[in-house]
Amino acid sequence: MVVLLIKEEKITYVEDIAQGIESAPGALVGLFSGRNVGKQVVVVARENTHTLKQSKMGEEINNKQVILNNYVKTSVKESDMSLRTSKIQLKIPSGCDGAVLVKNLYLSCDPYMLSRMKKLEGHYTASFTPDSPISGYGVSKILDSSHPNFKTGELVWGSTGWEEYSLIKDPSLLFKVHDKDLPLSYYTGILGMTGMTAYVGLFELCSPKKGETVYVSAASGAVGQIVGQFAKTAGCYVVGSAGSKEKVDLLKKKFGFDEAFNYKEEQDYNAALKRYFPDGIDIYFENVGGKMLEAVLNNMRLHGRIAVCGMISQYSLEQPECVHNLSNLITKRIRMEGFIIGDHYHLYPKFLEMVVPLIKEGKITCVEDIAEGIESAPGALVGLFSGRNVGKQVVVVARE
Amino acid sequence: MVVLLIKEEKITYVEDIAQGIESAPGALVGLFSGRNVGKQVVVVARENTHTLKQSKMGEEINNKQVILNNYVKTSVKESDMSLRTSKIQLKIPSGCDGAVLVKNLYLSCDPYMLSRMKKLEGHYTASFTPDSPISGYGVSKILDSSHPNFKTGELVWGSTGWEEYSLIKDPSLLFKVHDKDLPLSYYTGILGMTGMTAYVGLFELCSPKKGETVYVSAASGAVGQIVGQFAKTAGCYVVGSAGSKEKVDLLKKKFGFDEAFNYKEEQDYNAALKRYFPDGIDIYFENVGGKMLEAVLNNMRLHGRIAVCGMISQYSLEQPECVHNLSNLITKRIRMEGFIIGDHYHLYPKFLEMVVPLIKEGKITCVEDIAEGIESAPGALVGLFSGRNVGKQVVVVARE
Repeated sequence: MVVLLIKEEKITYVEDIAQGIESAPGALVGLFSGRNVGKQVVVVARENTHTLKQSKMGEEINNKQVILNNYVKTSVKESDMSLRTSKIQLKIPSGCDGAVLVKNLYLSCDPYMLSRMKKLEGHYTASFTPDSPISGYGVSKILDSSHPNFKTGELVWGSTGWEEYSLIKDPSLLFKVHDKDLPLSYYTGILGMTGMTAYVGLFELCSPKKGETVYVSAASGAVGQIVGQFAKTAGCYVVGSAGSKEKVDLLKKKFGFDEAFNYKEEQDYNAALKRYFPDGIDIYFENVGGKMLEAVLNNMRLHGRIAVCGMISQYSLEQPECVHNLSNLITKRIRMEGFIIGDHYHLYPKFLEMVVPLIKEGKITCVEDIAEGIESAPGALVGLFSGRNVGKQVVVVARE
Repeated sequence: MVVLLIKEEKITYVEDIAQGIESAPGALVGLFSGRNVGKQVVVVARENTHTLKQSKMGEEINNKQVILNNYVKTSVKESDMSLRTSKIQLKIPSGCDGAVLVKNLYLSCDPYMLSRMKKLEGHYTASFTPDSPISGYGVSKILDSSHPNFKTGELVWGSTGWEEYSLIKDPSLLFKVHDKDLPLSYYTGILGMTGMTAYVGLFELCSPKKGETVYVSAASGAVGQIVGQFAKTAGCYVVGSAGSKEKVDLLKKKFGFDEAFNYKEEQDYNAALKRYFPDGIDIYFENVGGKMLEAVLNNMRLHGRIAVCGMISQYSLEQPECVHNLSNLITKRIRMEGFIIGDHYHLYPKFLEMVVPLIKEGKITCVEDIAEGIESAPGALVGLFSGRNVGKQVVVVARE
């Protein structure tokens, strides 16, 4: 493993990178058992290792895809997905206006994808279609375009297919990568949906004030680690919880959390929160739901705010855990608000204005924890699935 | 029973009036079994029936008080309270600056009082003290004042004791009754804390827009009936639920709700809400909690808002019911906010500006449903406790 320290280390950001489209199912599954540390990313291709020769444009070539075999009921297993090689012509078909054809470079593994693997009606995103490739966020390069806003060679991030190449008929969910000084993979994380989620949940919904107390659950996860660092820049006291000693160490030593604890070692979440927040919690960034939410409600301060980003502890349960103590909302005048980042992309420029300087000035330092070389890939991959490595399974086959 | 129709009847407001300090414990208990219809008020004295002769001022006289015998555990029974007659001197003691001595005219029974009867720590209001008179909202007349803002003879509403006369050492929670054109008892209801609660929860927290759908639980209760009428003035489609056919009729015929249903006759709250809100609920004014909240969450629309005013179905349970489906907050981007009216009294002038003209112009018509005369008091009182009369137990001994 190689730790690549980029810039100063005042605030760190960990990406958990799995290499190759073949590792995508396992990486996604790992999210739900907590094997990843930080933002789980799948590298489909590093840009310059698969540079397309001009002669290939227009050719029909192989396109490896991650297929959903069938709807999942509760949790997801690797066997719910399979790899398939189909063919794709590297040219936008005639008559297909307003589309882009992209080569996918990085794919992002996100918890919300589990709900798309279920047959849900009335959900905020449509279910995936069995026997078809799934989709998600990614970073891609435009190979061909019939859309006036996109040109061949441009780099974009946004909604794309889990496959090597995608024909995107509606590129309205693609954003341009403007700042190439920063690692491209950041656009699956801190500069993309993940960072935006942390930003909107913390700043737009919870308006942290200097000296307030902030609790982040699933704090070593992709969003949680950024939330904690953002809250520190706002002058808050920040405590996170995570599921292993390694993750807890990471929160305190790398991400600058004031305190952190391993929730798996706590018999009584209530008591744990009282220990770290003797005067209560002003802001809770909710990632897990269930029993933890119940304990948090008991420990909130008057006029507390809860941004409900996710409830990952609940997604794989047949019957979700329940919360008995919502009357705390009244007695403590708590505001609890769920959000979906898709509603807030109009804030993306405002977000970049804040976050890019923070990263460049070293006020937010980003760390990728990477295992180098294709040779290390099999072991790293196995480790991710067996849970022996607490996460951080990152393999890079080649640099851009 | 005499129905006193005041002004036009476009919007109605029902007060459930129990006469005499002796009826106070039963009236309060009745709240929790749903025996009352509308705002429960206790008339301690009508102003002109107990006019104090000048000679009485300064005398020591009898003062009947409602005493809390001991902390209650779950629900409240009449035997948890008792009547006691103590003595009070009708003059502010020397050295007691900034105080007022009042004669209480009306007392308001409010659900939040149950929590004050329990031994709770960290609650938003202090617990009552056993073996002492309880307190609550009321309408009172100033008999003596050592406070520069209050003069003898003025009428006020706000926090006072459950007794005939109170020495209020801190009158900061007293508001002057400015508009004597309207019935004085309204200041325990639509012009007091109850109306303010409806106003803040609906308008300040939920910002109703024309054409939106509003659901009110415990809709025939003091706050619920006003919420529904306010929502109608905002051009919303309004549905309420209540616990008897009579209350349901009242909602539709008197309060102008578009629809109403008896929740006790519904096997499946989910199905009931789907029937009345085929396209979902934009705004929920939460008064009950538990299973109803769970069903509401399943039926909310995107970007729905929930004002959490009370959870009366939960207050008397050993173990509150639980809510399994809070993940709806995320998928539907719901904002759920608890509030305590005490935080919002700076809005009282703004509220009066809105509500007084509505009442005077007949756009909100107020109805009091009254049993006349001291002779009818015993029967009315018994009916209230046995639940034979679905509520509306109102007795007036004398007019002001």
